[in-house]
Parts: sequence; C-alpha cells; structure tokens
Amino acid sequence: MHAAGLARHPRVNLVSVFDVSDAAADETSALLGVVRATSIESVLADPGIEAVLIATPTNTHVDLIIAAARAGKAILCEKPIDIDMERVRHCAREIEGLPVTIMIGFNRRFDPSFRAIRERVRAGEIGNVEQVIISSRDPDLPNMTFLAASGGMFRDMTIHDFDMARYIVGDITDVHAFGAVLVDPSIGAAGDIDSAMITLRARSGALVQINNTRRCVYGYDQRLEVFGAGGMLLAGNRMATTVQASTTRHTGGADVLLHSFIERYTESYAAEVDHFVECLQSGATPLTNFSDGVEALRIAEAALESARTGHTVRLT
Amino acid sequence: MHAAGLARHPRVNLVSVFDVSDAAADETSALLGVVRATSIESVLADPGIEAVLIATPTNTHVDLIIAAARAGKAILCEKPIDIDMERVRHCAREIEGLPVTIMIGFNRRFDPSFRAIRERVRAGEIGNVEQVIISSRDPDLPNMTFLAASGGMFRDMTIHDFDMARYIVGDITDVHAFGAVLVDPSIGAAGDIDSAMITLRARSGALVQINNTRRCVYGYDQRLEVFGAGGMLLAGNRMATTVQASTTRHTGGADVLLHSFIERYTESYAAEVDHFVECLQSGATPLTNFSDGVEALRIAEAALESARTGHTVRLT
Amino acid sequence: MHAAGLARHPRVNLVSVFDVSDAAADETSALLGVVRATSIESVLADPGIEAVLIATPTNTHVDLIIAAARAGKAILCEKPIDIDMERVRHCAREIEGLPVTIMIGFNRRFDPSFRAIRERVRAGEIGNVEQVIISSRDPDLPNMTFLAASGGMFRDMTIHDFDMARYIVGDITDVHAFGAVLVDPSIGAAGDIDSAMITLRARSGALVQINNTRRCVYGYDQRLEVFGAGGMLLAGNRMATTVQASTTRHTGGADVLLHSFIERYTESYAAEVDHFVECLQSGATPLTNFSDGVEALRIAEAALESARTGHTVRLT
Amino acid sequence: MHAAGLARHPRVNLVSVFDVSDAAADETSALLGVVRATSIESVLADPGIEAVLIATPTNTHVDLIIAAARAGKAILCEKPIDIDMERVRHCAREIEGLPVTIMIGFNRRFDPSFRAIRERVRAGEIGNVEQVIISSRDPDLPNMTFLAASGGMFRDMTIHDFDMARYIVGDITDVHAFGAVLVDPSIGAAGDIDSAMITLRARSGALVQINNTRRCVYGYDQRLEVFGAGGMLLAGNRMATTVQASTTRHTGGADVLLHSFIERYTESYAAEVDHFVECLQSGATPLTNFSDGVEALRIAEAALESARTGHTVRLT
Repeated sequence: MHAAGLARHPRVNLVSVFDVSDAAADETSALLGVVRATSIESVLADPGIEAVLIATPTNTHVDLIIAAARAGKAILCEKPIDIDMERVRHCAREIEGLPVTIMIGFNRRFDPSFRAIRERVRAGEIGNVEQVIISSRDPDLPNMTFLAASGGMFRDMTIHDFDMARYIVGDITDVHAFGAVLVDPSIGAAGDIDSAMITLRARSGALVQINNTRRCVYGYDQRLEVFGAGGMLLAGNRMATTVQASTTRHTGGADVLLHSFIERYTESYAAEVDHFVECLQSGATPLTNFSDGVEALRIAEAALESARTGHTVRLT
Repeated sequence: MHAAGLARHPRVNLVSVFDVSDAAADETSALLGVVRATSIESVLADPGIEAVLIATPTNTHVDLIIAAARAGKAILCEKPIDIDMERVRHCAREIEGLPVTIMIGFNRRFDPSFRAIRERVRAGEIGNVEQVIISSRDPDLPNMTFLAASGGMFRDMTIHDFDMARYIVGDITDVHAFGAVLVDPSIGAAGDIDSAMITLRARSGALVQINNTRRCVYGYDQRLEVFGAGGMLLAGNRMATTVQASTTRHTGGADVLLHSFIERYTESYAAEVDHFVECLQSGATPLTNFSDGVEALRIAEAALESARTGHTVRLT
Repeated sequence: MHAAGLARHPRVNLVSVFDVSDAAADETSALLGVVRATSIESVLADPGIEAVLIATPTNTHVDLIIAAARAGKAILCEKPIDIDMERVRHCAREIEGLPVTIMIGFNRRFDPSFRAIRERVRAGEIGNVEQVIISSRDPDLPNMTFLAASGGMFRDMTIHDFDMARYIVGDITDVHAFGAVLVDPSIGAAGDIDSAMITLRARSGALVQINNTRRCVYGYDQRLEVFGAGGMLLAGNRMATTVQASTTRHTGGADVLLHSFIERYTESYAAEVDHFVECLQSGATPLTNFSDGVEALRIAEAALESARTGHTVRLT
Repeated sequence: MHAAGLARHPRVNLVSVFDVSDAAADETSALLGVVRATSIESVLADPGIEAVLIATPTNTHVDLIIAAARAGKAILCEKPIDIDMERVRHCAREIEGLPVTIMIGFNRRFDPSFRAIRERVRAGEIGNVEQVIISSRDPDLPNMTFLAASGGMFRDMTIHDFDMARYIVGDITDVHAFGAVLVDPSIGAAGDIDSAMITLRARSGALVQINNTRRCVYGYDQRLEVFGAGGMLLAGNRMATTVQASTTRHTGGADVLLHSFIERYTESYAAEVDHFVECLQSGATPLTNFSDGVEALRIAEAALESARTGHTVRLT
C-alpha cells in the first residue's frame, strides 16, 4: 500500500523497494515498475535516494531509523517507534543533531474529518475544549503471531488514540486505564488484553475518554467527539456508499462500516505522504515528528502501569 | 380518539357522545364518564352544548354540518367535506351567513414539524419557495368497503397533501396527475388507484410534487421538503424510540416507522383541538376553514380529470 | 409536574397535594381540582390515601420515607434517597420489614429508548455486552443554592448515570473518576466539580464510560451506547421537531436539543408513574427499588473517593 | 479531468491529447507527459490508437463520432450525443454496422451509491419497483453562453436524470413536465427554464418524479429514492468530511454539499473509464451505449413538448 501510494504521488519518484520476502519485493517492484533493491545497505548507499519510508515490523524500526538518519535520508516511519521506551531513548540519542527530517506515521491526523475538527477547534468554533471522546474499534482480531510481537494493545493500537488525544488537546498529565479480556481468552492467556477504556487529563484541563476493542462486528469504527464551551464537533465513519435501506425490520439502515484500516484511511495515508513531501520541500518539521512518537509511547506505558496498579499515573 | 382528546383537553368540557353503533357509544361514554346521547337531534337541541366534533362517514358530513350550523353550534368536521363538489357547494350555500365557526380537520397542518417549516418559511429563512416535495405513504391497504365509499385516492388520501401544498405555497393554478394500480389489482377493478404522482403549480410560481401509495411496508411515511432560493427545510418521521442498531448487516438502522396515523399524528390531533378551542374563545377564523375544504377538493377533482385525460388541468 | 402527571393518570385518583410553600400548594391544588393538605401528618393519617409521591428537597427524603412507610403508604420518592450513606442505611433499617412498596425515581430507566435498549440487550440482539458509553450533559448550570445542598455532582447528577449503568450491565465492582472545574470557577470554590469522566467495571466484566458536564450549550444531551459481541445499540436525543435545514453554511442542521429535563423525559416520568401503579396493583417489586437507590449512592461515594485519591475504588 | 483520469488508469496508455485551444492542449499534454496532437485527423489516422474519448462541445459530437467510428476507433463520448434528434438519427445511420464500441458518458450510472441501488433492486431486495424520486440540483447557474448552446435544461441537465430513470425502471412510455423560471429571468428571456418537475411512467408501470433546479445554495444535491413493494432504498450526498456540529443554533449540522460535479462524481468518472476499458478488452457492450443516448434525448424532447402543450406525451 505504501509503495503504491508513493508511486502514484505526482511529486515523488519511487526508486526502489526492499522486502525481506523476495516474493513480496518481486511482486511490488514488478507491479510498480521500479527497482527491487537487494539490500537495505544498497538503498541507504544510493546518493540518488533522498528519503525512505519504513513499514517493517516494529522491532526493526530503531535500527533502520538510525541507519537511515546516518545515511542522511529523510524518514517516514510507521508507528510505533518501538515498544521499549529504553530503545526509543537510545534511538533519540543516536539521531540527535543529525540534520534529517523524521516523520512518524500517525496517519489518522491526516484523516480529512479529524483534521477538520482540529482546524475548527483551533479557529475557536466551539470555544475551550472540555471533553473528548475517542471511539476506536478494530473489526477483526489480529493473529496471535502479530499480537505476540505487538507490545500489547496500548502500545500497538491505542497509541493512535493517544496521539489523537494529543492532536486535539495537547500535553497529557494524567492517565488511567481499565483493560479487559472480553473477546478472546487466548489473548488474555498471552498476557495481553482485547478491550480497554482509558481516561486522560490534559495540561489544559480537558478530559479525554478512549474506548477500544479488538473486535467490532459492524466494521472498523473510528469516531471523534470534541465537546467545548460553545458546542460539539463529531466525526463519524464513511461507508462504501450513501445508500440507506428501509424495510419491515428497520428504517434507514446504512452500509456496514468499511472493515479494513486501509480502506478506512485511504485518504489519510495519501495526505500523510503529501505532508511528508511538503516538509521535505519546505524544510518544515512534520506534524507528527519523533517526539510525538515518544510522547504517545509514554502515555501507553502509563496506561499499562495504571491497568496493572489501579492507580492514576501522573506523567511528569 | 377524538372523544378522548376532547375529554383530556383542559379547556373543553365534553358533554356527550353519539354513535350510530350503540356499542361504540356505550363504550366511549362509559370510558370517558360522559353522557351517551340518544340522538343527534338531542345533542343539537341542547343549549348547554357550544360545539360539535363530526367524525362520521364522509357522506353524512354535509347534512350534519348544515344541521349543526343551523343549531348554532361551532363545528370541527373531519375531512373531506364530501366527495361530491355539488354537495359541497350546496352545503356552502346552506350555511352562508350563519354566525358559526367551522373548521375542517386537516390535522397535518398542526403537526409540529410541518408547522415549524411553515413558520420558518414565512419568516424568510429559505427565501422564495421554489419547489416542494410531499411524500405521503400509507402503511396498509384500507379494506374494500372503506375504499368503495372513500371517493377514491385523490379525494380521500391525497386531499391531505393538496391541503399541505396550499399550506406552504398558497393557491394552486395547475394540476397534473398520474395514477396507477401497482399494489392490488382489486383496487383497480373497483375503479380506484393505489399509487399516484401529482404535480402542482402554484400562483406564486412554485412547483409541487406529491407521491402517494396505499401500502408502504416500512410504515406510515410522511415527509415534507421545501426548497427555496436560500436553502432547504426537510421534515421527516418520528420513530417510537431513537434507538439505532449497527450489526453485521447494516449500520444505524432505526426503528420501523410508526404504522398508524393516530400514533403518527398524536400531537397534530391534540394541537388541532387546541386551535379550535382557541378560535372559539378568541373569535378568530380557524386555520383550516370551510373554504380550505372546498379548495382541496377542487384540486382533487382536477387531479382526477388529469389522470383520466392526460392533460394538465388549469384551476380558474 | 409530578402532581399533574398523577392527576392525568387514568388509574390514579389524586387526593391531595402538600407543599411547604402555601402559594405553590394553593396553585397546584386549584389547578388540578384537588385538596390542599395542611400538613404531611394529615396526609399520612388519611386512610383513604394508598400512596405518596415524595418530590421534596433531598435532605427531607429519609424522614418522609420512614414516616410514610410506618403509615403503610406505598412510596414513590425522587432520587437520591439522601446524600449521606449513613442516613440511607439508617432509613433502610427503619423501614426493614414494613410491608410497603418503595420505588426510587430513577425516571430514565423508563425512557422509551433506554428501555428498548435494555430489552433488546436482554433478548440477546447484540450478544454479550462489552462496553457502555453514557453521555449525560446538563444544559445549564444550576444555581449555587441548589448546588450547595446537592451533595455534589456525583451524588446529584451522575447518580442517574450510575443507575443507568446498573440497569444495563448489573453490579459494579470498580470505580474510577476524574472530576474537573472547567465551566465555572465558583463551583470549584464551593468544593464541587462541573465536569467529570468516570469509568466503571461491572461484575460481568463489561466496562462503562460516563461523561458529564453541568453546561452543554446545544441542550440537554443524553445518549446511551451499548456495544456487544454482536453489534451496537445507540439511543440519541429527541428534538422538538424533525425539521432539518440545509443552507449555505451547513447541511441537515436539526433543532437544538430540548433544554429541560422535564421536556426531555416527559415520557419517562409518565411511564415511571405507570410502573408504580402497576406494581401497586400487581404486588410486584418496582424496577427501581430502595436497594437501587443505595447502590447508585455507593458508586457515587466510590467516585468521590477515586477523584480525591486517584485510585480505582473497589466496591465489595 | 478526463485526460488525467485516462493517464492514471493502470490499463490505459494515454497517447495524445487534442484541443482547439492550443494553450489547453499544451498545458494538458505537458502535465501528463503525452503528445499534443496537431489535428483530429492525425489522431484518427494513428494505427497505434485504439480508442478516443470525446469531451468537446455538444455540437461537434456527431461529426467526431462518425469520423472516429469510420477510423475504427472505440469511442467514449460525453452526453448528449446532440441536441437535435435528426442529427442523432443521421449519426446512427452513418455508424450502423461499423464494428466499433461506442459508449455515451452517462457517468452517474457509475456512481457507487446509484449503482449499488440498481444492483440491490435487481437482486430483489425491495421487490417490485413502484416509485422513483430523483432530486437533481445544480449548485450554480451556468453562464449564458454555455446555456445558449446547451439545448435547454431538459436536453442538457435533465438528460442525466432521464437516463437514471431508465437505469432503474427501464423503458419510459409517458412523460409530463412543468418548467419554470424561478431563479433568473434572463434565462427565461433566452427561452430556457431554470426549474422543472417532470413525471415519467415506465412500461413496467413504475412512476418516476424528477425535480431540477439550476441553483441550489447548499451545493450540488443529487439524490435517488427507489420505493418498492418490499421497502425503500435511498442514496444521498457525500460531504467533504463526516464532521457534524452542534451549537446553540442547531444540532448535527454537516458540511455543505460539494459544489462541483467533478468532486461529486470523482468516483463515477473513474468507474466509467474502467467500464469502457473492460468493454474494450472483453468485447462486451457498454452499459451506456448509443441507444441509451438516443432514448434519453427522446424523453427530453417529449418533456419539452409536454412543458409547451400541458399534455402528457406518449413515447411510442
């Protein structure tokens, strides 16, 4: 998906793709008519390459970011930076001072509806923001192999919502979380959770509620409600069509929600790449930079601690 | 329903009820704790009775209106006045000059949503009205006995919509109608139709579309759309609850529409009685008076002619 | 409102009203055509009176409940029973074993939409309930005098939502609350809060989020979202009309929400009285009995403690 | 737009563009990196070119179709074929028997929502189709130069809706139309109309209402409602975002509708090209072929006659 997005972008010249799976690399390079790189090293050594997009498993991000930054490449890396805060700090130290643009792929900030809410909030349309509710429900359970390496629900899935909270209300000071295993006991057996409700308090005073589940039978449900002194803004979901059916059983039933994050966030992924390209051309700092990746992970770790201890965790 | 509505009204003292069915009269008078009148004559002769509500079969309306008007009673009579324009004109001549308040029961004018649209239109919110769309669909076929005496779809059912059109855009000058038998051939065999699309042109220039059917499986569907130079106002249906369900099959399916006109227009019937009482106390002319009954019937007759000839019928 | 509701009810014979304000008692008794009682004692001593509805200030509830129960009257008392758990326990002990029906006025359980959700959940429509979101926003700040005697937001306002949570998911085992003063600093100065986000965990495992504010500029916003293994049910708000406006500035803007709880919950209050009457006639225990009043208050106290300490409070 | 759409299509190799405006041709060919053809003749003579897309002024369509068909090129031509039925018939005769694929650009058939309705109707979801309502409102008045050459509202604008009616209910047998000048008197002075309500009867018995206006202040409003024996399907409009605002003035106000047909029908235009390419590869007849262009124009002419005479016009 990322390779195709880059290939389609009018201001991007996609040079090559690399994948540890030869088959995947072959297929993608053939489809897009670009070079299939034989190694990461060769990509980083190529002076004709300005930027890399890293969409590899999470545990490879830190090494790849460091290598790419040293090679002077601009970086767009998928979230999270890593699931281990120590390694994230190590990464930060290693790349400190290197003059490269680094963007972390919190693509939801680029969703047209969430972005419009942020802009309207900033324009003062609903006054001081008092409460935010983020509903974020995945349609289908991921497989256990993915889960085992994911760092757990808060670091893998909720991290998007922590970033969304920061996008709307800024710095977070207090975190409380209830986790639960309500969908699949094998997730609990693996030490993870599949359902959660998290509450945040922002430095601004605003309160934020997040609700998460790994399985939502009616599709990929992603909503944002921002309540302020002067009104409320609410972003819902897009369906494949606008058709609504009225029958003997119900009135106005719309399509089931899109099931895949790729369909749901098509526009976001395109706008994300667009933003990255603009930053490269203008020299601006990306809207979702390395420190945003660090902050979202800090909240995730606080949520883990809160879920374990039952206490509200204060971020300092 | 009407008797109970009167009994509940704080400014009405319901004295008696009469019905040609003794059983119905007994039941209603017992339920409401009022006198069961033995004849219409006794009701009209009672000097303690100020007003009568006539909710009898259509073919009795004219005689009852004339008798009640001569007896000096204020009259709230269900629509239509009659299905025969000659008899309506005869009625008009008979009651001319009699100093009584006569209101025809076009209850939909008192629906809170339709009324709000009229008021907002009059307040100029959407500028000059250019187009109106009235969707008016009955849930279930009436029985053939009722239909046989009904005067046909235009005079029995669409008459409400003709009145609604006049409520929003005023005088109608041109009428075109397509009728069809799409639901039940026995309706066609009886010389009536069960589906129709009618177009009106108002003296103001505004155009109006009405769509009708005798059977709508998802309930009693009554909508009004008013389009103007400055925007659109749209009134929909109320469901029994606000609950919406999202499942593996659809998103946001609401309750099926209310099936009965009595449920759908509960508020209208109450507001209609209210308006009648206010007119009696203030001396004002009702919003839906005898001439509104005449005008709606004239449009119905023009629609009948248009459906027969295929020509647009001009009202003079 | 309560007196008028009783007077209108077909199976209730409203005998008398009492109010410490003579003026209010006079007005209400005159309006409804009933006796104005001169003292509570005379009401309780009247053998012709079967039941009393207590809608006095909260701090009088316990004494009135005890006196009425001793006098053998059935009781419908407004929530909360009291703001002091000790006094509630005292009340429980005093009335223990007295053979009277006691119902606490958690009217929202009788809202047609919330009730429909409960019934559809019980019928298994969405499978196992995993998450509940209760949005409960008052339109306007109450006056400071009321607030001073209210017992604070959790015991006065959120108590409805705690009861709603119990209505949907049953017993609550864990409580966490963030309170905040975001609307009016004078509320904070008085030791209370005006905004809150609360999370509950039920014995069933279900998680519940509640969001509250004392001021919502677009009206009285009361929503319930129940998410289960098989789908989601969502109850929204009713507006005064169904009219939606489309203009140069927005599409489909509906009426502002009703502002008053009396308008918003008209149907609930009527259904509440209905349920009380049915229980009296059938001998059934009301859906919202004394112990429901106790349990909701226990959750409120836990929420207070959690907001103070930052810890999750476990109910035992 | 069309050139860019072809350039983007994975199975299309865009060879060249031609425009009578050198500037436009230069800009487009430079932007897309293709040859700027110097004449239509050179394009048609190029054996490497399989197909042409004709998006020129309406009065050039017939000559271009004939020339391209003789040159053996497949043709995707914008609607209408011509505004003069005689010339359309001449065109039909000239190309009769030539073995080329010809598709007329009724792009709305390819809108995902309208297409889904057609498919669900065909699958029997709502039973026999009884009524169709097509709301089709342009946001802004076109300029007078465009209007003068347009053939009038029915042949230029409503023709889309006539085709949509045929898409859903098949052959049309009866046509009635009311035209009006409600928006701009200068349109009336030029002999055209700016508002219309048209009713069609299909051979199947279904009735169809179309409402049109040249100016809709809340955007490009395109809706389709199909009512059948078993329910209703309704397709609405997409907004730029899903954001809804609740304020002191209204609840749930969504974005203003998209204003441009290019934005509104982005997906349709892409799917239209897709369908054309598929037909070329499979040899299938396009869903919108030459005879669909003829039929829509016949209905437009009947509507013109009906608007002039006031009679229902029967198509034979």
